[in-house]
Amino acid sequence: MSNVIRFALLGCGTVGSGVVELTTRNAAYLATRVGAPLELARVAVRDASKARAAKIDPALLTTDVARVLEDSSIDIVVEVVGGEEPAGSWIGAALRRGKSVVTANKSLLAARGPQLLSIASEHRADLAFEASVGGAVPIIRTLRDHLVADWVRSLRGIVNGTCNYILTRMRDESASFESVLAAAQELGYAEAEPSLDVDGHDAAHKLCVLALLAFGASVRPEDVPTEGIRAIEPVDHRFAARFGYGIKHLAVGRETAGRELDLRVHPALVPLRMPLASVDGVLNAIALEADGAGSQVLVGRGAGSLPTAVSVVADLIDCARNRRAGVSGLQTIGLDVTRRPIAAPQSQEALWYLRMRVADRPGVLAQIAGALGAHEVSIEQMVQEGGGRRASDRQGTDDTRVIVMLTHEAVEANVRAALLSIDAMSFVHGRSLALRVEG
Amino acid sequence: MSNVIRFALLGCGTVGSGVVELTTRNAAYLATRVGAPLELARVAVRDASKARAAKIDPALLTTDVARVLEDSSIDIVVEVVGGEEPAGSWIGAALRRGKSVVTANKSLLAARGPQLLSIASEHRADLAFEASVGGAVPIIRTLRDHLVADWVRSLRGIVNGTCNYILTRMRDESASFESVLAAAQELGYAEAEPSLDVDGHDAAHKLCVLALLAFGASVRPEDVPTEGIRAIEPVDHRFAARFGYGIKHLAVGRETAGRELDLRVHPALVPLRMPLASVDGVLNAIALEADGAGSQVLVGRGAGSLPTAVSVVADLIDCARNRRAGVSGLQTIGLDVTRRPIAAPQSQEALWYLRMRVADRPGVLAQIAGALGAHEVSIEQMVQEGGGRRASDRQGTDDTRVIVMLTHEAVEANVRAALLSIDAMSFVHGRSLALRVEG
Repeated sequence: MSNVIRFALLGCGTVGSGVVELTTRNAAYLATRVGAPLELARVAVRDASKARAAKIDPALLTTDVARVLEDSSIDIVVEVVGGEEPAGSWIGAALRRGKSVVTANKSLLAARGPQLLSIASEHRADLAFEASVGGAVPIIRTLRDHLVADWVRSLRGIVNGTCNYILTRMRDESASFESVLAAAQELGYAEAEPSLDVDGHDAAHKLCVLALLAFGASVRPEDVPTEGIRAIEPVDHRFAARFGYGIKHLAVGRETAGRELDLRVHPALVPLRMPLASVDGVLNAIALEADGAGSQVLVGRGAGSLPTAVSVVADLIDCARNRRAGVSGLQTIGLDVTRRPIAAPQSQEALWYLRMRVADRPGVLAQIAGALGAHEVSIEQMVQEGGGRRASDRQGTDDTRVIVMLTHEAVEANVRAALLSIDAMSFVHGRSLALRVEG
Repeated sequence: MSNVIRFALLGCGTVGSGVVELTTRNAAYLATRVGAPLELARVAVRDASKARAAKIDPALLTTDVARVLEDSSIDIVVEVVGGEEPAGSWIGAALRRGKSVVTANKSLLAARGPQLLSIASEHRADLAFEASVGGAVPIIRTLRDHLVADWVRSLRGIVNGTCNYILTRMRDESASFESVLAAAQELGYAEAEPSLDVDGHDAAHKLCVLALLAFGASVRPEDVPTEGIRAIEPVDHRFAARFGYGIKHLAVGRETAGRELDLRVHPALVPLRMPLASVDGVLNAIALEADGAGSQVLVGRGAGSLPTAVSVVADLIDCARNRRAGVSGLQTIGLDVTRRPIAAPQSQEALWYLRMRVADRPGVLAQIAGALGAHEVSIEQMVQEGGGRRASDRQGTDDTRVIVMLTHEAVEANVRAALLSIDAMSFVHGRSLALRVEG
C-alpha cells in the first residue's frame, strides 16, 4: 500500500459530518478495501468558525473552494452543500480537472445530470450519486450495476421522507395535514419552508434521477406532473383503509404500451398487501418491475446524517478504488442517456379514488353520477357517509355528506373534467379530490 | 474497443439458458458498459446432444471441462452446475489460472467460501456470487459494496422460495403442508426430493454466505441450528393472524450483546406491520439492521431462469469490466473473513408462540402452566379453542382442544425443556410446537 487517496468535502453539515464520522471510524477497514488509505484533505465551508457535529482538524477547514478544486493532490471531491449553484459549477470544475465527484445533490442532478455525466465521461472521472435518492437505499447501484442486463418497465417510489412521515401520522392519529406538519417541523422532520417536500418538488427531482438510470431518459422536473399532499384529509385515510388501501406519496415512472414514458409525482392509493403500503414514517422505498428480475422492492432510511453518509461513503470507496486502479470514469461510460418521448399529461388510464363533500339533499348523487358518466368515468364502488361526525374531519358540518368512489379504468383528463363540472355544482362543498390507485 | 472479453458457461440448465438469453439480447448495450464485446466462448455440458431452452451454436458445446479451464483465451468462467463437487474443483482450477469466476452455488460457498475467496485474492481473480442468495435480490452487492462503511447488527431473510410459497398457500387456502407440497411439486416450485428446501438446509447454506459478508464470519451449515416447515399447520397461521403475525421461514443472523453471532434457520412469527410479513409466494426478502443505515429491506424474485440470470450477468459485467481494466481481484481484496465466536445454541432469549393439542378435560391448563412456570417460561397471552372444527386441521377430534400461547421473553433451552415435559403428559396429543416471534 503506497498511494494515499485524498478527498475533500465541499460542505460540512448533517451529511458531511456523517461522512467524517464513518470514514474516521472505519479508516483501517476502508484502507484494506481500497488498497490504500483514504485521507480527508480539505473541508470547504462557508464559515470556518461555526461549531460542527464532526471532529475536524481546524487546519483542514477552508472557505476557499477554488483552492480546493485547483489542488491537484486531491483525487475526489464530495459535494454535500446541495442546490443548483454554486454546487453545479464546482462539480463541473472538479470533473474537468479529472477529479471524481460524489454528490447527494438531487436538484442539481435533475437539472443537469446528463451534462455532468458526459463531462465526467469525457474527463475519465467518476460521478457517483447514490445518496441523491432514497438516502441509505441502494437504488442507484441497483439500477446502474445490478440491473445492467435488464429492462425496467416501471418504478414506484416513496422517496420523500417528510411526506411519508406526515401521511403516516395523519393516518395513525386521524390528524389534519396542518397539525402534523407543525409537529414534524418541531421535530426537524420538515423544513420551516416545507413546500419543496410537501408539494412534491423534491420527489420530482428524485424521479428525474431515477429516470436517468432506469429508463436512460433525460427528463427535467418541469416535465413531471407533480402533486403534493396538502389536499389529503384524515377521512381519505379512513376510506382508503376501508377499501383495502393505504395512501402514499409516490414518484411513478413507467413505459406505456407505446414505449413512451409516463412520469408523475402524486399521492396514490396502494393496496395494503403490497410491501410499499407498510413502508411507514421516515422510511423510503422504491418498487421496480423489470423484464428479467420481475418485481423488486428496496426499503430503507431516506434521510438523516448516517444513513445518507453510508451511501456517500460507499460511492467514495468506489471512486477511490477506481482511482487507485486507474480506471476512473469506467462506471459511467456507456450509460445511455437520451431524450425519450414523454407521454402526454393526463392521457393515461387509471383506477381512481374520488372524494367529494356535498349538501345532504335528494338528487345529489344522480347529478354527480351523471357528470361522471358524461365524461366516461364509470363507478365501481361508492360509499356515502354523513360528514362532520369526527372532529378531525375538516369542513364537516351536520348537513354535509362525504361521498367516496372507486372508479373503473378512466383517463385522467376525463376525471379532471368531470370533477371540474361537479365542483361547480351548487351543492358541492370545497374542492373534490381525485387520487390514482397504483398497483 | 479492441479486446473481446471471452466467457465460458459450466452447465446450461435453467440459469445458464437465462444467461445466454440476457447476454445475447443485450449484447450491444453490455459491450458499451464493458468497453469491449462479451463473447460466449464455450458451454460445457454433460450431454451435448440434449435439447436446451437457449439457442446455442452447437460448435460451442463441449463435454470436456478441463479443456475449458485450460483455455487461456477464456477470461471468465460462469459456473451454474451447483453442488460441492466437481464444481468446487473446477472453480478452484479456474481461479488458480487467474480466470474470474461467477457462481450461483450456495452449497459450495457455504462449505468453502472463505478458501475460494482467498484463492481468488491470491491469483488476482474475481469471485462473484450475487445469484447465490436471493435470486434477483441485490443483497450481495449491498452487503459487500453499499454497506462497506457500515456495521450490520442483524439480518432476517426469507431466502427459500419453496418454503415461502408453501407457507403462503397454506395460509391462504387453510391447507395442510402435505397437500400444498404436492401441488408445489406439480407446478415445479418444489423438488421431487424436497428436503433441501423444506427442512431448511438450503436456507442454512444461504445464511452462511450472508454471514460471510454481513459479519465477516466463516460459518459452516452444520454450525447453524436449522428447522424446516413440516411442523406448521393451518391452525398456526390462523392463530398467528389473530395475534397480529404472519408465519415466515427465516434465516436469522445477529450479533448478541456479547458480540457473539447468533445464527439460525426456522419458521417464525413476524408482525404483520413489518414489510417481511407481506413478502408472499416465491418472493424472497432480506431485512437488515445496520449501525449507520438503520433498517433496510430488499425484496425480489428468489429463483427462476431470468431473475437468477440477471444477478449472474451483473456479476459477469463487473468481472468483465475489471478484467478489461486489469484490476481483477480488487473487489474481493480486503474482504475480512475470520472465525467469529458463535453463540451457544438454545442460549438466547426470545418471545415464543406455543401450540399444543390436549384432551378436553379439567385441570389440563393448570398442569401445562405449572410445567412452563417450573422452566421459567411465563405466559403473556393464551387462547383455548375446541379443536377439529375445521376439516383442514390435522389430528382434530371433538374432544381435543388447541391451546395457543404467546410467552414473555424466555430462553430457548427452557422452552424446549418445558415442552418436552408437557408432551410427556398423558392428555397431550402429538408434538407441541414452539415458534419464535421475530422483530
